[in-house]
Parts: sequence; C-alpha cells; structure tokens
Amino acid sequence: MSKTQSLQFVRHPHPSPVAADQRTALLKNPGFGRVFSDHMVTIRYHESQGWHDARIEPRAPIPMDPAAAVLHYAQEVFEGLKAYRTADGGATLFRPQENARRFQKSAERLAMPILPEELFLEAVDKLVNIDREWIPDGDGSLYLRPFMFANEIFLGVKPSSDYLFIVIASSVGAYFKTDAPAVSVWVSTEYTRAAPGGTGAAKCGGNYAASLLAQAEATRHGCDQVVFLDAVEQRWIEELGGMNIFFVFDDGSMVTPPLGGTILPGITRASLLTLAKDKGIKVREDR
Amino acid sequence: MSKTQSLQFVRHPHPSPVAADQRTALLKNPGFGRVFSDHMVTIRYHESQGWHDARIEPRAPIPMDPAAAVLHYAQEVFEGLKAYRTADGGATLFRPQENARRFQKSAERLAMPILPEELFLEAVDKLVNIDREWIPDGDGSLYLRPFMFANEIFLGVKPSSDYLFIVIASSVGAYFKTDAPAVSVWVSTEYTRAAPGGTGAAKCGGNYAASLLAQAEATRHGCDQVVFLDAVEQRWIEELGGMNIFFVFDDGSMVTPPLGGTILPGITRASLLTLAKDKGIKVREDR
Repeated sequence: MSKTQSLQFVRHPHPSPVAADQRTALLKNPGFGRVFSDHMVTIRYHESQGWHDARIEPRAPIPMDPAAAVLHYAQEVFEGLKAYRTADGGATLFRPQENARRFQKSAERLAMPILPEELFLEAVDKLVNIDREWIPDGDGSLYLRPFMFANEIFLGVKPSSDYLFIVIASSVGAYFKTDAPAVSVWVSTEYTRAAPGGTGAAKCGGNYAASLLAQAEATRHGCDQVVFLDAVEQRWIEELGGMNIFFVFDDGSMVTPPLGGTILPGITRASLLTLAKDKGIKVREDR
Repeated sequence: MSKTQSLQFVRHPHPSPVAADQRTALLKNPGFGRVFSDHMVTIRYHESQGWHDARIEPRAPIPMDPAAAVLHYAQEVFEGLKAYRTADGGATLFRPQENARRFQKSAERLAMPILPEELFLEAVDKLVNIDREWIPDGDGSLYLRPFMFANEIFLGVKPSSDYLFIVIASSVGAYFKTDAPAVSVWVSTEYTRAAPGGTGAAKCGGNYAASLLAQAEATRHGCDQVVFLDAVEQRWIEELGGMNIFFVFDDGSMVTPPLGGTILPGITRASLLTLAKDKGIKVREDR
C-alpha cells in the first residue's frame, strides 16, 4: 500500500493540443460524451508488480491485443464524476472520494485489483489540472471517466493478471437533449437489469450491456429512460437505465428503493437522502 | 442482405509468419488460449454502411480509442468452436452453423447488428484455411474465437453505431489441466449468473464477468468449475461457469436443466440430447 501510494506520475504534455479557438468552438455546444480533452491518465497493474507506470499523456488510441480479456469477458468497471468551474476560475469536484470508494467496491465484485483511494483521486486531480481549459463555461462541466479493464492476453475464463486503469475527460452540456422539464420513462416488463447474487450494485459494463435492448425499447416509445423492475417478482421498481429513482408524494414525503445488491448505490442518491433528512423531509428507503 | 453476402475478403498474408520449427515447439503442449495463429479476420460494421471492409490479415493489436463503447458498457458477444485435423490432412469443424446462429441470437439480445450466417462461416473457413498449420496433431485442435464489440467513440449509454467483428485462432490442448477423470465443481450459494429477463441465454462478456468471483471461490476450494443456482429461488441448478450440466442416474437416464432465458443453449448440450434420444436413453429437460 505504501509503495503504491508513493507512485510518481510521469507527465508527457501533449505536443500539439487542440488550438484555443477550435476548443472554444467545441465547448459552445458540447452535448454529451463526444468532445474529449487533450490528455489521459494511465496506470498499469500486474499481479506480480502491483500498480505501476503512472502517466499523464496525450489522449491516444490504446493498442489492444485481439485476445485481451476485456473484449471477451467484460471484466471492466468505471466511474463518472464532474469537474465544475468555480467563480474564481478554479475547478471543483463533487465528492470524488465517494466515487473512489465505489470504484473499489465495483472492482471487488468483478474480482479485480483495488485501486487505492489516493491514487484514484490523484489521477482525477491531475487530469483536471492539465486539461482545465476544457471545462465549459455556464452550465457545462468536465465529465471525468475513470475506468479499468482486464488486459491479459488469454482466452481462459479467469480473473485477469493484468489491468489498465485510465481516466479520460469529456466536456459536456446536459445528458438529455430534451427541453422538457422532466425525463420521461418507460417501464420494461420484458427485460431485467440485475438479480440477487448478481452485479447490480457494481458499476460494471455488463449491467449497461444488459440494459441496451430495454433502453432501445424505451427510446422507440419516445421515452428518455427505461425503468427496471426486480428480477425475482418482476413487480418492484428498482432503477432506471442510467440513474436511481425517487418518488415524491403530494404530502412532500419521498420514497426510493432500498439498496441490497441489485441497485447501484448512487452518490446523488445518498446526497438526496442526506439533504432531505436535514431539511426535515420524510424520506424512506422502501420497495 | 445480398449486398452483404457478396462481401469480398481482402487477403493480406503475414509478411513474417512464425517459423515452422518455432510453431512445432509451440504446438507440443499448447495448453489453452495462449498460443495464437498468424492471422485474423476482421469485418467492420457501421449503421450507415452495414458490413464492410472484410479482411484476412496478420494478427496484430487493434488501436482502440479509450472512449470506445466496449471498454465502458461491455456491448460484446462471442463464440467458440474448434477445427480438428482429419485423417487425410484436411480440417473439419463441428456444426459451425449452430455457432453462427447462436452468435446472431446473442447479438440480438445485446442490441447489436446481425452478422449473416454465410459471412460468419466464410470468416471462420478462411482463417482455418490460411492458418491450417496451427492445428496441433493428436488430441489438440484449433480453437476459433469469433467475437464482435461496440467500437463507437461515445460515452452515452446506447447501442453503438459502429462494430468490429474479428475471428482469431488459438492452438489448444485440453481446457482443464487436471489429470482426474472428472471436472470437480463448487456450488455457489452467494453469487448468481443470470436471471429471468437478463442476458443468461446470450454468449456475452457480462455473463462471464459476473461469474469470475464465484469461479475464483470455486478455485480457492480446489474445484475446477462453479455451479450456479437460479437467481429467483436460489435452489435450482442452472449451469457451470463454463458449460451446461447433465445428471446421469443409476438407471442410465439423464436430466439437464431446461433452457428458458437464463441458460446458455449449448451446442454440445443439444448434441447430447439428440444422441441420447437416438440411443434410446431416457433424457429429460427438467429443473
């Protein structure tokens, strides 16, 4: 642990970053997830070496062997968090420690190595720092995507011996294109997202892959998001394709489905629960 | 469809294939999934172009953008089948049409494009043909791994617009190292593999990612494979981490769990059912 915590990040600044006027044009209306900053952070892991080779380097394609485990067995986890511009021109993150901890929990469920919280936070900080100019003005933010995947060149089904942790950044506006004041939802009665004993509480690729057909069905019906029911009885609302759900009743009280292995423990969810209680709003975690 | 079926494969033979003596050494005791042949087949798909750019080319790393969808949302499916050397020096495949069809079904569940059966078969044939020397003698075989993954550079959760289909080949001996006459199994009471409405019947990465922790638990207890129970009642045996299961009783009759969305429709399973019935063995698909 102490060896890992003292990892030095080697910095390779981009030799030809995107020009300022071009960047300004991109940041005008970035949408979501298509405009990327100049750099990325990479840290490698091998079971014989632990975490090593930390770099800040120009964002570039990764040469991947076609037998790399992630392309076959989806041993992969990720996080998502945003850097906002502050009034004094600095940048701020929203509770990144929570993302670092959830990333560890996700990795544990997927039989992957645990990235120390300090390394996660340092990686994110360093990327925000070098690519600070990519934070849009106004309502936009710099969406940070830390992720880790199995990189061993082996077709046997087992936890990989080799991993790559990467942080990339994308300048974003709103996730939903809609001008409507709310997100419209479609309840899927055919497909489920997670079951007891499964990976529902982990932020791993497979959960999202499983949701795509249901999400496509929602889109076809003109809805923004799909709502999943539980897999056992198929009658209890669990969560949306991309977020947790809260019900607000006429009396002002709130209910959200309880965690318990099948639901992603959302950081916004936890914040809402805390804030609601602080404000004296009646809030329950209940099916 | 007709346009796709007439795709021409452009052949780029390897400029410096592995030398014959080196290959012979590798094939002596190849193990499983680590010895690879000289070439690969790639076919690209884009929603605006359909299937295009079919190639047989030297096996090489694929440059992947760090925001490629597969590395985040695991939109990926695969197949596995073997080419065996025949007595006359040729090569033969075991029911590859079944793999082609299952690949289509897996793709459908993962909201991916359907690769025509003919293209799948042609890709596999061409690879076996060019890398025929990689089929080991004796009990070994050339394990073919067709797979497809989402390649769009986008962080939004949706079916990708862009895919890469690849076939690689690995010279293999036995999957299990054990000298024992049987595979030992560990029943997981904590983790599940698939639930109704989920992706259990698809050969997709997420199912295998979900199984790794349970498989590691089995290995820790000295067992070769994990046995999963159903996710709803957690009392019915469904399948192993890497294969279907049959029970053979003292009276010679056989039982295997029924398909129904949570179990992979194994091609060996289907063959066993057919052969058993032909031989007059009492065989039931039952929980």
